[in-house]
Amino acid sequence: MLDKKLLEVLTSPPDAAVAIVTQGKDGPHVVNSWNSYAQITEDDKILFPAGRMNETEQNIQADNRVKITISNREVQGKSIKGTGFLVIGTAEFAAEGADYDTIKAKFPWARAALAIKVESAEQTL
Amino acid sequence: MLDKKLLEVLTSPPDAAVAIVTQGKDGPHVVNSWNSYAQITEDDKILFPAGRMNETEQNIQADNRVKITISNREVQGKSIKGTGFLVIGTAEFAAEGADYDTIKAKFPWARAALAIKVESAEQTL
Repeated sequence: MLDKKLLEVLTSPPDAAVAIVTQGKDGPHVVNSWNSYAQITEDDKILFPAGRMNETEQNIQADNRVKITISNREVQGKSIKGTGFLVIGTAEFAAEGADYDTIKAKFPWARAALAIKVESAEQTL
Repeated sequence: MLDKKLLEVLTSPPDAAVAIVTQGKDGPHVVNSWNSYAQITEDDKILFPAGRMNETEQNIQADNRVKITISNREVQGKSIKGTGFLVIGTAEFAAEGADYDTIKAKFPWARAALAIKVESAEQTL
């Protein structure tokens, strides 16, 4: 079960950008998605619809480690209103199978599901 | 003069997390700040208050290139409401001088100003 506060950050308005960071050949790479695009699977993966994300996909083929930050200004943090998480995990792109079907049902424009297996989720604020 | 849409993203509510990405020894590193914390200087640097950000500071001492994503769900993008920018630049931490004074006046808790010289700002959505 994912952290309850993380789920609150993912599901409470206002919607905020998620940063998805991978290792590129010439330095770090970052793309964004939105909190509201995240789908949680029964086995606690976080799925995002991939529109382009071509460079992210190439990067994780070489090194599948990802770091993701997820925030919400309206969710109470440790001391102030506004909190966020640093999620560390491994990622893969699925263009068929259950994760893809879950994403495709909600985001018909998605070419694949970016499926992130969570290794740690640290509340950063 | 920074892109007008970028300034709109930085100054319009709701406040959203900014992702600040640097190269670490063992992969990419990411920290967050908030849109509303960004201060724009007369020479178009983007300043953020540094609370901890110790690993970010170490990383930019070795490689001063940074990538930043900044988003706002309520600002009109190219096709949908919600847009963001990928800002690429170089960074330094200032613990004295004009940039530090600007940050310290607004964020007394800041130990330094993270000053980002913008090289490019691409509207990503």
